Amino acid sequence: MDERTYTADAEPGDHVTVAGWVHEVRDLGGIAFLILRDKSGKIQVKFEKDEMDEDLVETGLNVHRESVISVTGEVEAEDRAPTGVEMLPGSVEVLNEADAELPLDPSGKVDADLSTRLDNRTLDLRKKEVQAIFEIRAEVLRAVRDYFRSIGSTEINTPKIVATGTEGGTELFPITYFGEEAFMNQSPQLFKQLMVGSGLERVFEVGPIFRAEEHNTPRHLNEATMIDFESAFIDHEEAMDVCEGTLKAAYEAVAENCTEELDLLGYDDFETPDGDFPRLTYEEAIERINATGELDEQLVYGDDLSTEAERALGDDVGGHYFITDWPSEIKPFYIQDYEDDPTTSKGFDLMHPRMELVSGGQREHRYGALVEGFEQQGLDPEQFDYYTKMFKYGMPPHAGWAYGVERLIMTMLGLENIREAVLFPRDRQRLSP
Amino acid sequence: MDERTYTADAEPGDHVTVAGWVHEVRDLGGIAFLILRDKSGKIQVKFEKDEMDEDLVETGLNVHRESVISVTGEVEAEDRAPTGVEMLPGSVEVLNEADAELPLDPSGKVDADLSTRLDNRTLDLRKKEVQAIFEIRAEVLRAVRDYFRSIGSTEINTPKIVATGTEGGTELFPITYFGEEAFMNQSPQLFKQLMVGSGLERVFEVGPIFRAEEHNTPRHLNEATMIDFESAFIDHEEAMDVCEGTLKAAYEAVAENCTEELDLLGYDDFETPDGDFPRLTYEEAIERINATGELDEQLVYGDDLSTEAERALGDDVGGHYFITDWPSEIKPFYIQDYEDDPTTSKGFDLMHPRMELVSGGQREHRYGALVEGFEQQGLDPEQFDYYTKMFKYGMPPHAGWAYGVERLIMTMLGLENIREAVLFPRDRQRLSP
Repeated sequence: MDERTYTADAEPGDHVTVAGWVHEVRDLGGIAFLILRDKSGKIQVKFEKDEMDEDLVETGLNVHRESVISVTGEVEAEDRAPTGVEMLPGSVEVLNEADAELPLDPSGKVDADLSTRLDNRTLDLRKKEVQAIFEIRAEVLRAVRDYFRSIGSTEINTPKIVATGTEGGTELFPITYFGEEAFMNQSPQLFKQLMVGSGLERVFEVGPIFRAEEHNTPRHLNEATMIDFESAFIDHEEAMDVCEGTLKAAYEAVAENCTEELDLLGYDDFETPDGDFPRLTYEEAIERINATGELDEQLVYGDDLSTEAERALGDDVGGHYFITDWPSEIKPFYIQDYEDDPTTSKGFDLMHPRMELVSGGQREHRYGALVEGFEQQGLDPEQFDYYTKMFKYGMPPHAGWAYGVERLIMTMLGLENIREAVLFPRDRQRLSP
Repeated sequence: MDERTYTADAEPGDHVTVAGWVHEVRDLGGIAFLILRDKSGKIQVKFEKDEMDEDLVETGLNVHRESVISVTGEVEAEDRAPTGVEMLPGSVEVLNEADAELPLDPSGKVDADLSTRLDNRTLDLRKKEVQAIFEIRAEVLRAVRDYFRSIGSTEINTPKIVATGTEGGTELFPITYFGEEAFMNQSPQLFKQLMVGSGLERVFEVGPIFRAEEHNTPRHLNEATMIDFESAFIDHEEAMDVCEGTLKAAYEAVAENCTEELDLLGYDDFETPDGDFPRLTYEEAIERINATGELDEQLVYGDDLSTEAERALGDDVGGHYFITDWPSEIKPFYIQDYEDDPTTSKGFDLMHPRMELVSGGQREHRYGALVEGFEQQGLDPEQFDYYTKMFKYGMPPHAGWAYGVERLIMTMLGLENIREAVLFPRDRQRLSP
């Protein structure tokens, strides 16, 4: 193709070809303006009807909005143009004409509901403030991977087709795998643990997870992207340090490298979390929640935290915080309990004031205790033999955690609905596009 | 946990705690050596039986091989030790005792077949030369992502649960999705195309793909990791430039940052590809293959290239090369044909002398031609409405391609079997671990 110049790079005096979408055409009579939009920004193309070739003017001014065109011509300084420059077209080529009627207005002048937006994600993502969310998402992934590498962690990819789910048969999507029953994996948990027992010692993965939960809420997805971390020779306290470091690295990278995107989203005061995140024990959390008086019914030890309870505590704390020392019975089998108090686990959650972001903990690395944990949870350890048997061959003490990328983006950017943080969400009702 | 020092960082004069796996114990009578192995390397721990606490000696020398221990003590220079230093233990703690019998020998002294290795990946990956493959794999992913960002490409994640496969109903794993029929996606193809029509323009994804192929060969997997690239406003020639650039970036990063790993794998002459990759048309390729005389039967125009044909041509060319201008009928519907010759497509393959690495091409961006292509391929365009309809609203000309990560690693490192390039392979027979 012809050498193409981004509109943002077009300087007065240049002779260039720009290509993009017809954002708007304004016909003022003797003169008309076409605003061409590309990834980098917009440029004004000026048509002087009496002085230009008739066909050229006709092509430029009759093309439908959102058509794809390329324009070759001179760039001139023009103070009255929005970007201070405008183009005088020597030629215009229509690369792909758009229909006159669009299911969604990419200029954003006409509001669309989320469902229409998701049905037409291509058009929806022509809005700069929607695009900004996904540029930020990509920057977050870059930043967390860099952070992991800086602490000696190796990227892994674990299988998404599995014979058994992490926590048994619930909430799994079944697959037919060459006539055998299999499932889409709900978490890399067991596989990343197997890898800390290998020579890799410290690993991370960014990949999809699948949960057949019936929830249909603004903060649940049936397919999500997970950031998983696991390391040998650390305990739950050190795992929380890494978790906190990862989150801060993500926020700092966005603050530093996504200023334009944050502007588009209306953030003139994007705050990066600083200071150590408070670490409340579960018991302290319960007490503080009860003390807020926000709940109709007082919580008692052993209760899981409802959405309302999380909100009350989040408002009270006012920033990110950890909840540690959860009752063993409400944490999964692979979380280790305290030696001197087997009713309390070394599991933790990282909380944003709006919701839970991370689950993690010190893991059970002793074969006997692990198999017992399976049984207590009503799971058959035999089915997980591929996993448990490796604990007999030198499994180090280890700890780790997992972030949902979408919740991280949702809370970072104050999005109302988690579906805004994923290109093509999958939920109870939505399987397409 | 106690502050832990990697064995490679232990310097004479230090008092440190190291932790890792018991690699070997050599008892020479009055003196004994325990070799402790961790991610960074190995260290010799010396037990002087007459001078040390009896319990300490007993603990250190009776622990099974591959148990996890931590040792605290003094580091001393010792020329006769393999690394030039040794530790005099003040205390030894057994963190997790391994069984006496292991299903696989992590020291590599006893060979194991691939199936046993894959059944016991945790132990297998304690071998430094196996670990090296996955450190290199992680470095390749880092390098290609950096390369993509350097050319203004945004990372995306597209759904793995889909209503329709990229190329229809063949070779798809079916899922039950809340009572509806769905599939595991065989390629991000359609979704990444939808994204080049959005404001993102140029995107990449690294993620799993799923193919229900019945093949059970040393170079096929049913779940693989794909590197996908797609960009608006480029043609197939420019897509090949990016493809070549990505491959070279990966090789150069490995040559620069994985010298230790390459040493372990026995490469003292790891070659990074240089010079422009030859671009043969399909017709030229056929002629050259026939001219080698390696094939029992001469190829004729329209034939797909068999494994034997690829090998014959690969030997003849002797390095990476592209095959361009494929007959339209053996390329999928979304590849564009030449305007002046609709029987020839703008599809291309990147070939390594051993096998195909990449499929790519200029895409069909015109609504009418796209729908026609579906019909010609025997697919119902209605079923793909979520995709085709976006081509009516300003889809730019675009091109792209996809690499299989495992084939890239396999050819880069000269691995015999593609399963060596994936932690937990999925094939016709293997669903666990």
